Amino acid sequence: MTYVIGVDYGTLSGRAVVVRVSDGAELGSAVHPYAHGVLETHLPGETARLLPPDWALQVPQDYLDVLRHAVPEALRAAGVDGADVIGLATDFTACTVLPTLADGTPLSELPEFADRPHAYLKLWKHHAAQPQADRITDLAAKRGETWLRRYGGLISSEWEFAKALQVLEEDPEVWAATRYWVEAADWIVWRMTGVYLRNACTAGYKGQFVDGVYPSPAYLAELNPSFADFAETRLDAPIGQLGQAAGTLTAEAAEWMGLHTGVVVAVGNVDAHVSAPAAQAVEPGQLVAIMGTSTCHVMSSDVLREVPGMCGVVEGGIVPGLWGYEAGQSGVGDIFGWFVDNAVPASYLSKAEGDLHGYLSELASQQPVGAHGLIALDWHSGNRSPLVDHELSGVIIGQTLATKPEDQYRALVEATAYGTRLIIETFRASGVEVNELIVTGGLQKNPFLMQIYADVTRMPISLLDSEQGPALGSALHAAVAAGAYPDIRAAAAAMGRVVHGAWTPSSDDADRYDALYAEYRTLVDYFGRHGNDVMRRLRKIRREALR
Amino acid sequence: MTYVIGVDYGTLSGRAVVVRVSDGAELGSAVHPYAHGVLETHLPGETARLLPPDWALQVPQDYLDVLRHAVPEALRAAGVDGADVIGLATDFTACTVLPTLADGTPLSELPEFADRPHAYLKLWKHHAAQPQADRITDLAAKRGETWLRRYGGLISSEWEFAKALQVLEEDPEVWAATRYWVEAADWIVWRMTGVYLRNACTAGYKGQFVDGVYPSPAYLAELNPSFADFAETRLDAPIGQLGQAAGTLTAEAAEWMGLHTGVVVAVGNVDAHVSAPAAQAVEPGQLVAIMGTSTCHVMSSDVLREVPGMCGVVEGGIVPGLWGYEAGQSGVGDIFGWFVDNAVPASYLSKAEGDLHGYLSELASQQPVGAHGLIALDWHSGNRSPLVDHELSGVIIGQTLATKPEDQYRALVEATAYGTRLIIETFRASGVEVNELIVTGGLQKNPFLMQIYADVTRMPISLLDSEQGPALGSALHAAVAAGAYPDIRAAAAAMGRVVHGAWTPSSDDADRYDALYAEYRTLVDYFGRHGNDVMRRLRKIRREALR
Repeated sequence: MTYVIGVDYGTLSGRAVVVRVSDGAELGSAVHPYAHGVLETHLPGETARLLPPDWALQVPQDYLDVLRHAVPEALRAAGVDGADVIGLATDFTACTVLPTLADGTPLSELPEFADRPHAYLKLWKHHAAQPQADRITDLAAKRGETWLRRYGGLISSEWEFAKALQVLEEDPEVWAATRYWVEAADWIVWRMTGVYLRNACTAGYKGQFVDGVYPSPAYLAELNPSFADFAETRLDAPIGQLGQAAGTLTAEAAEWMGLHTGVVVAVGNVDAHVSAPAAQAVEPGQLVAIMGTSTCHVMSSDVLREVPGMCGVVEGGIVPGLWGYEAGQSGVGDIFGWFVDNAVPASYLSKAEGDLHGYLSELASQQPVGAHGLIALDWHSGNRSPLVDHELSGVIIGQTLATKPEDQYRALVEATAYGTRLIIETFRASGVEVNELIVTGGLQKNPFLMQIYADVTRMPISLLDSEQGPALGSALHAAVAAGAYPDIRAAAAAMGRVVHGAWTPSSDDADRYDALYAEYRTLVDYFGRHGNDVMRRLRKIRREALR
Repeated sequence: MTYVIGVDYGTLSGRAVVVRVSDGAELGSAVHPYAHGVLETHLPGETARLLPPDWALQVPQDYLDVLRHAVPEALRAAGVDGADVIGLATDFTACTVLPTLADGTPLSELPEFADRPHAYLKLWKHHAAQPQADRITDLAAKRGETWLRRYGGLISSEWEFAKALQVLEEDPEVWAATRYWVEAADWIVWRMTGVYLRNACTAGYKGQFVDGVYPSPAYLAELNPSFADFAETRLDAPIGQLGQAAGTLTAEAAEWMGLHTGVVVAVGNVDAHVSAPAAQAVEPGQLVAIMGTSTCHVMSSDVLREVPGMCGVVEGGIVPGLWGYEAGQSGVGDIFGWFVDNAVPASYLSKAEGDLHGYLSELASQQPVGAHGLIALDWHSGNRSPLVDHELSGVIIGQTLATKPEDQYRALVEATAYGTRLIIETFRASGVEVNELIVTGGLQKNPFLMQIYADVTRMPISLLDSEQGPALGSALHAAVAAGAYPDIRAAAAAMGRVVHGAWTPSSDDADRYDALYAEYRTLVDYFGRHGNDVMRRLRKIRREALR
């Protein structure tokens, strides 16, 4: 018997899972929280100094502690001997990126930079580079840069270029000391193997590596003359394909984890994307929705098309040999959370026995479709796909004096399902087939919500049958990298776990939802496509009022 | 010293106020609740039998009990001897209407009809005659009946014709026994004086008495052949003008109240309309807003114009010699009540110390105009003026995950202020001047709300300086009827009470509100004037879902 280990790096902790190579059985797991969490107000060791708004940093040593603690613990829980482990793979949040020396040492670990915020790792949700991101997008559009089309016309403030440009412009000394601008997904592999490869997934989705090249020095120079050599001097590492072996464990890394130096480590990967093979979604048209506070949609396809508002399309970005598409809804579970925190009366709280989501879902599930008389737009965090507009905001239409909290809750759940249907229809209208909808993430546990998604999309819903989908997905890549399977398709077939048709649409309800979805579409055009730019003007009025 | 008594009949109780003729001082008052309240589920003495939805009946004897109890009690509280009272007047909810015999006996008091719902008095909020109202409006429009224009193109289910037609069609025996179809406002005067007059106010606003005639028998016959003689046989009573004496107290009525038979009783009146002279609003262009769960707007003018969506324009309907306009917002305070009951979390309840409206107002008042980034439509109860469409519903636009309950509360308050501004602008655009805004009713006590109304309308706000405005207004009419003043203008000058300029607009905030009001207007056209009939379709979908 041989085993592999998947390690999933989340926002607040890392999780290790020990998986049997032969059948994908998850034999043991352990979670280790990051000692420093997310740095949003001050650096370690400080108390007074406040970081500016929208900053979010982390301490790379915390990731190594996950290897030191969670991996041995997961092995113990699984009852597996480290000697029987043949491979290990990791997945990470992205774009989570840090400046390093030539040997991979994070600049934040140098005494001279310990008090310099820009020397630290920038977490995916560091949003303070928005001015840089705006310039990056605007200039690319102005110059007609063709790579912009692969990103739905918009480069995010979360990604590598915007975050790098912020460092260059706000702390040139840190920038000057930066040899590599490294995705955490790649850094952790580097630390385990001594080999630095940029994985094809983040290089493509977060680093604008398109058809084998980065944006040109001429373009970069126009952003900032000192930025002209960014790609040549800070991103200059070979690309690793997903499922490839990056190397084997160093003696040091093997000792941290109680493993041996023969363990093969796979090229780094991203949490959402790695979930797809875990759900056996390795063929064109299998759309995987990772549903939590927000939803990320990943899907492979054999065609390259321009799909409006996608987050990116990358060759081999999910599965080698296919075009990997990513799209997203910027608010889903967090909208329901906002509603529960801000708009549900005390009388409900006392009846909910500590579970307001469950109570509202239970009440709302008793209604016939359309009985609440409401329709909502799910734009409380703006709209990522397909409108790519974070100046948009939420709407609920149809309230009367008889409208109850469960009515509005249901309308918001439905709105997010309409948002998913809109993304599916946008793919299809662009010539990219969508054949199956596979859900993973925390929201898959809400049967009320799952049934609505099936009815609204008119698609049976499959479920990734694991509560640790990303870690399982990493384990699959470890098995491929270690040579246990010839490719990720074979590994997915043997080790992936999916329940097909867990939820099936009711045709009566689906018919009723068609009428409501038609209203949603009309409102999307009105509020989101310049029928009435009232939401953008309300944001402007708000900003001026608060000035 | 001489005194008059005003009696205000509300939905759940009647209030008597003793007022000094010389200066309008309110010396004492008393309230008496109706023993039977509002009959919405069953008749008196029954328990099991349920009335259909939307029914609302009352028992006329309850009104006489107000005279028996509240009037003597108010006299005692005022320390006034009944011998010094020279006049009495009443005001009523409307259209509140009942079937009687030739001598005014309510049919519900006859043993043979005591168990027949249609023999009972129908309260203003009896809404079960909507099918009849729809036919009345549609036929009038089809036939081009010119009187329809005086009612903004729509005859309400609350009014005399719709309620009468419902009786005829649903209980022909009750209808056959009905000699008179009597407004409660006139019935109470009839019971006190033995004289039956139809007051010009309700005959005009609620009874389609236009330019001296009722709708024609030919029109009525087309509604229902048996209805052809309705006006001739059930409404055939002389018209009394407001402020006229209807007669003096009968010995029986004088004894009920501890008064004498020389007391002059004025022609009946309506609660909203009678408030205008109490606030000295007897000249053209003084708009009085009676603000509570809903808002009623009454205003006199020297010109007759067609104003879209008004509730009615009646010659002498408020003040003799002027055209009296009525408009309304169907939801105001009840929208805020709905929000507080359904959309404010427990954490606020614990901080509000029992006064959620006050707490939310306090929090919201600290915001600069526009800082919440929201805009709402105040149509949770539909829109009365100017759209006359109860299929409309509420909207809030602009929510984000940072939106707080006080933000939405403020947006709803502002929306009702925009609704008032829209009514004022509609009057002006039709050629009817509006010079002053005078507020009365429960909402005048909320300073946060009053300031918003001043800023949004760009008008100083005057207040009726009495907590019992309608009863004071009735007292003024009693004084005129008794001959103490030559007309209602003179009585208003001496006895009315208004604080001018209690709230004045801030020009900065008013400028900011102009931008938000422009958004409101655009949304009114979109959702309310067939830009997108989504609200009507949502109602239809809702009705079908609940079928």
